[in-house]
Order: sequence, then C-alpha cells, then structure tokens
Amino acid sequence: MGRVTARRRITRVDLDGATRTRPDTLAAEEPLEIRVGPAGGPRPPLAVTMRTPGNDLDLAIGFLVTEGVIASPDDVVTAQLCAGDNEPNTYNVVDVALAPGVEPPTTDPSRNFYTTSSCGVCGKASIDAVRVRSRHDLGADPVTVDATTLVTLPDTLRAAQKAFDATGGLHAAGLFTAAGDLVCVREDVGRHNAVDKVVGWAARNGRLPATGHVLMVSGRASFELVQKATLAGIPVLAAVSAPSTLAVDLAAESGLTLVGFLRDRAFNIYAGDKRVITPPR
Amino acid sequence: MGRVTARRRITRVDLDGATRTRPDTLAAEEPLEIRVGPAGGPRPPLAVTMRTPGNDLDLAIGFLVTEGVIASPDDVVTAQLCAGDNEPNTYNVVDVALAPGVEPPTTDPSRNFYTTSSCGVCGKASIDAVRVRSRHDLGADPVTVDATTLVTLPDTLRAAQKAFDATGGLHAAGLFTAAGDLVCVREDVGRHNAVDKVVGWAARNGRLPATGHVLMVSGRASFELVQKATLAGIPVLAAVSAPSTLAVDLAAESGLTLVGFLRDRAFNIYAGDKRVITPPR
Repeated sequence: MGRVTARRRITRVDLDGATRTRPDTLAAEEPLEIRVGPAGGPRPPLAVTMRTPGNDLDLAIGFLVTEGVIASPDDVVTAQLCAGDNEPNTYNVVDVALAPGVEPPTTDPSRNFYTTSSCGVCGKASIDAVRVRSRHDLGADPVTVDATTLVTLPDTLRAAQKAFDATGGLHAAGLFTAAGDLVCVREDVGRHNAVDKVVGWAARNGRLPATGHVLMVSGRASFELVQKATLAGIPVLAAVSAPSTLAVDLAAESGLTLVGFLRDRAFNIYAGDKRVITPPR
Repeated sequence: MGRVTARRRITRVDLDGATRTRPDTLAAEEPLEIRVGPAGGPRPPLAVTMRTPGNDLDLAIGFLVTEGVIASPDDVVTAQLCAGDNEPNTYNVVDVALAPGVEPPTTDPSRNFYTTSSCGVCGKASIDAVRVRSRHDLGADPVTVDATTLVTLPDTLRAAQKAFDATGGLHAAGLFTAAGDLVCVREDVGRHNAVDKVVGWAARNGRLPATGHVLMVSGRASFELVQKATLAGIPVLAAVSAPSTLAVDLAAESGLTLVGFLRDRAFNIYAGDKRVITPPR
C-alpha cells in the first residue's frame, strides 16, 4: 500500500548559500485503476488516474458520483481495493460492483476513450452534457454565504494541509459549511482527485447532495472542477486562483456560485453573486 | 475559432474597499478532439483534452510525440483543424493522417480508454512503459547547465507570459537553450497542454530530439511532465514548484535532470545532478 509522502535524496543549491545533499519529503504519486460493472458481471477498467495514495475508496466513489455514474453509495454493492492482476504487492486497483438497476458507465463503441463530459467538441456541447447528467438543481439551493466568512476559508484550508507542510507540493480541496466550518479536507497531486476524495467522503457519509456547503480548492477553477461540484450538488465553489471561461459559463448555466482569486480579504464572484452577502457600503 | 482570452462580467468584493461590477479577462478553455489514423484509412477520435485555443496543430503533434506515437513530423502526412461532425462553427477537432508504415496508436480492446503510460497499475510498470516507448537516451546527452543560468529562467519565462498578464490564471512551458535563451513559450489552462504545444512547435521546426535544451514549467513537476520531456529528448526539466515521487523516479531511470523549487536564486536537484554546474564554494 502506498503512502502519502516518501523520502528521496536531493541536492539543494543556493547561490547565496551552500550546496548540500540531504533527504527530502515528496508527495507520493501512483496510478489508480478504477474498475466498474454490475455486481454479478464483468467489471472492466473504466479509468486510470495518477493520484496520491490514500482514501482510494473515497476517490473511486467520488469519481463515479462526479461523472454521473452513481448518485449515492446505495448504488454500490461493494467497493474494494485489490491488487492488480499481475502485481500482487500493489494496491492500485479499486473494484466497484454496482447495485442492480444502476446503469454501468457508457462507453461509445466507436471511440477509444471513456465518454466524459469533455467529449463534446465545443464548450456548449460540454456544458449541455453536464447539465443533462446532473441530478441537482443548484439554483434552487437557498444558502447564502457571508463575504466575511468566505475570506476565512483559505487560511482554514491551508492550516489543515498536513502533507503540504511536509512537501510544499500538493493540491487541496475542503468542504465547508456556509458558516465556514471545515468538515472534510483532502490533499492530492491532482486537484481533480482531491475534489473526488472529498465528494466520495461526503457520499459515503450520507451527505450528498451537499446542499448548503462550500467547496474550496487550492489553485485554479477549471471546467472539470465546476462539473464535479455540480454533480455533487455543492452550490458554491471557491478557488484561490483564476477560473477559465468554460468554468464560468458552466457555473452560470448550473446555478452554481463561483468565487475566484479568494485571498487577502478580497475575491471575485464570476457567477451566482446573489448568494454572497457583502457588508453594507 | 476560439481565442486565448475572453471577457466576462464579474463582481469584485474587497472587504477593505468597495464592491463593484466590472468586465474581467479570463483564460479561454475549450475541448480539443484529436483524431488519428492512416492517411488512407479511418481516423477515429483518440483523445479529448480541455485546452486554451491556439497553436492547436502544435498541441496535437506534440501530444503524439510525447505519447510515443510519432517521432518527427515526417511521420505525419497531414494535420489540420476541422469542424466537428455536427458543429460547423467550431474548430475544436484536429485530424492527423499518419504516413505509411507509422503504427496508429494502440488501444487495448479489453479496455475502454486510450492506453497511456499511466495504465500500468503500479509506478514501476508506468516507468517501464515510458522507458520502452522512448527513443532517446537522455543519459548520453553531454549538456551541462550553470546554476547561475538556471536561476534566471523563471523571470525570463514569466516575462514572456503575455496571457498570464491579462488573466492571472494560465500555466506556461518554455524551451530554453543551455545558455538560458528562450526559444519557445506556450501558455495553456493545462500544464500538459503547454508542454505539448512546445514539443509540437519543436517537432514542426526540426528541433527534435531537443538535445541540449532545458524545459521550464510553471507549477509542479508530475510523472506526466517528466514522461513528456523524456519522449521529446529534452535532458533537463525545471519546475517552479515540487515534483512527485514518481516524477523523480522516472527522471532517475531515464537520465533526465530534474530541478524543482526553482525560485529566488536557489533550487533543488532531484535527479541527474552531474549536469548542473554549481559555483565553487
């Protein structure tokens, strides 16, 4: 079983200091294969993601939720870590058996790759695909968030990033209440994995759809992250850095509040600004 | 045809200032579908990547190089942007016709997804897969780089990031000579796309394998980026932030020099430190 961090020998060069060799702590990265199918039938590999080991069942469940394959843990009979076919000493495969009546993920037989939302070849098609698959009407979520609460989230998230402290190189995702309380934080070399781990944790703890919550991510907000928040029923997504055009457009279409450049007691609202309560002028 | 940036209306909230609504410039994100096959035969979709529009032919060619499908532009008969089947007004598809004798990318028929190097379900298998597919012996590249040159790269790269200046939210990749001269820079919402665009530019300009060069990336160095540098024959990869364990292990196995945390006149060398000339103590 892999670990979240590992040690490697490095050479530190400082032009204003010394050059020396010492051990250093790095973020671990390993592939994880997710196999999905009916409980009694074949469960072929669906996807491989490069992730930081740990919380792998959350990652697999969260991935299936944010891809629209399942809506809750009730759609899953078993989910277990297993060794790959030829590698008895690794645990880099998660096998997920779906409950009767749950449609296995569709793969377009004329295509070589798993049909994700990004397979629409224009942004409009991608947005439509996500909207069709999402079971949640985010626009109907009445939650509001105070601007004074939002500006506290980055420090709270940062303080909870234990592996970042050791490595300086991991993304994080945190699920917060609208009052600013952190309920789950996950770190990973991939931002999308960190989000899937949080969503999978929420699913396995009966918290989906995560109405009334705020998802905060380190780094930028891409189309993919807005898609994941939408499929998990999370009404507010906040990012430390910039969103892309397609992220903003999907947020606007989905009724999701999208906040970016959240740092230093200020932020931008890119969509759904009615949900953010600003101080009186 | 998409553009690199686009305007959206945002609300800026500053707890120590005013709340106001104004237009803002964002990084554009759109899906790109890459179709590949023989010149006279069917060319099915191979992959879809979410990218910032622009330099799309470079992106497709670079992707095929860094995935080990082609070694040079001679392996390609035609590469052209075309509209999707049902969307005449978008140009989010690149069609690549391979030369006779060039093997189309293999897809494992028992799997639903394109077989990339990360499909090995342990890190060792992933590293082996990259090593088998790479045509270059990076360890044999005699180039050296002065530490005093390396520390100049971040500022040079940053100064060339025109779209970042406008948006604050784009990754960048730059190809440098060992003397520190920037020969190509590309920006994209995805780090891997920025690298593929640089590699594709190098391929189409007869510069592959890019022996004697340094690839500098914003952000972290993942396994995937080390793989791309290796397949392009680039002997030195430098990143502003941290590498992962698997990135370091692949670099060590491939003879690639991997530099991280390159900032403020200091850096770490994670593999291949013989190639970096440090000042006498």
